[in-house]
Amino acid sequence: MQKEITSTQNSFIKELIQLKDKSRVRKKTQTFLIEGLREISLAIKGSYEISTILVDTSIIKNREIETLIKASKSTFEVIHISNEVYKKLALRETTEGILAVAKCKNLDINSIKLTSKNPLILIAEAPEKPGNIGALLRTADAAGIDAVFIANPKTDIYNPNIIRTSIGCVFTTTIATGSTAEIISYLKEKNINMYGAALTASVEYQSINYIEASAIIVGTEATGLTEDWLKNTTKNIIIPMRGAIDSMNVSVSAAIILFEAVRQRQIPN
Amino acid sequence: MQKEITSTQNSFIKELIQLKDKSRVRKKTQTFLIEGLREISLAIKGSYEISTILVDTSIIKNREIETLIKASKSTFEVIHISNEVYKKLALRETTEGILAVAKCKNLDINSIKLTSKNPLILIAEAPEKPGNIGALLRTADAAGIDAVFIANPKTDIYNPNIIRTSIGCVFTTTIATGSTAEIISYLKEKNINMYGAALTASVEYQSINYIEASAIIVGTEATGLTEDWLKNTTKNIIIPMRGAIDSMNVSVSAAIILFEAVRQRQIPN
Repeated sequence: MQKEITSTQNSFIKELIQLKDKSRVRKKTQTFLIEGLREISLAIKGSYEISTILVDTSIIKNREIETLIKASKSTFEVIHISNEVYKKLALRETTEGILAVAKCKNLDINSIKLTSKNPLILIAEAPEKPGNIGALLRTADAAGIDAVFIANPKTDIYNPNIIRTSIGCVFTTTIATGSTAEIISYLKEKNINMYGAALTASVEYQSINYIEASAIIVGTEATGLTEDWLKNTTKNIIIPMRGAIDSMNVSVSAAIILFEAVRQRQIPN
Repeated sequence: MQKEITSTQNSFIKELIQLKDKSRVRKKTQTFLIEGLREISLAIKGSYEISTILVDTSIIKNREIETLIKASKSTFEVIHISNEVYKKLALRETTEGILAVAKCKNLDINSIKLTSKNPLILIAEAPEKPGNIGALLRTADAAGIDAVFIANPKTDIYNPNIIRTSIGCVFTTTIATGSTAEIISYLKEKNINMYGAALTASVEYQSINYIEASAIIVGTEATGLTEDWLKNTTKNIIIPMRGAIDSMNVSVSAAIILFEAVRQRQIPN
């Protein structure tokens, strides 16, 4: 018989609400909640292990759920939930009626293996706004870079707003986290050039040769990169700005530099 | 004696609330509301005519207001308002205690004069979200391009959320609006090349020579450019995407193409 939950007071549902709202609970249980059909599909594509799918069948069709089940390598339990329960768990207004419980991956910088000989990496130092992290991940996905590292993370990567604003790119991009010191020693050991984006830099970003192994490092919009990065990079670079305002959105800056790197790497010999 | 308003029921304040909330009222009166010291300073820099400054002196210091008065070419009335009145007029939570009433500019495409021989222009077709328009204007400012044209606008440019998300770049960028047909005939008449960003295009954006007069045209994230644009452009271009998702934020896409154009224009001969 199909398992069904109709009460928002159900203990499992209460645990899931905690999982959605609390980073601490995600960390403790090493699980998190995914909302939306595309996001769950991308998590499956990114080899995330799904334990449970919750569906509000007043919204989603059985056919779509079966497509998901076929795509997944792991088996998972499917639970039908009432619309009232769904609304307690969903983040979005325009909703799709499907949620999944997934297992966190080990994102420790020291367990990351890069396969490319000359990797292109984006590093964000202590980004705070989930929307900015989501946008960075979306750009990283589009540029097809090797990895995104988050240095001194302020937010866990499985925050529902990061999943949402990245449109699921959080699952398809290789991500690692670590302290700034750990990441710098990782890059140095692997001879990866480090280019720190800084408004105080004098070298223009487009003058750099990004064909060798390169990491582009961006700081927060408010305060930029810390001294720890600035003094350890190969070079610090600037996007020349010609307007009334000397700031750009961090995901826009990252996109400009990453796509210049991709452009250089594409030029036929 | 200093003019002071302490009642939210004051008829002038009621008019200003309408000005903040209603595009129709801005259009009818040809005036709009600006919030924030930086934004007002940029409007003055952009030669906007200010008629009135409203200050909540519990928040802002007289010294800052006097700096503004000195910077402005026109004279304006300064009205002190109570914190209660200020809160009715302000949009932001982190607020600066200053607002201004300014006169709209004539943004008609047919009244725009471009001074550059080989202008670089960004065109956005029917953008809906104020946040996207603000981000586009911020990018246009940073790239130092000649103008931004909004084709078939869905929102008036003096929407408070556009002013806020552009961080005042709406005042320092040359902006024009018109129908798609009007803008196309303007560009054709001036022999400006048109490059439409489209996911269906096959020409990669970086293969284009942007040194001649160029307009980059972007559509909405949801539906892209209309046929009216696609069939009239010089070429349609694509940013090659290498990830799981085949979409990018419109302001990120525009930034990648515009900064490639700027890069080409900077290469020394």
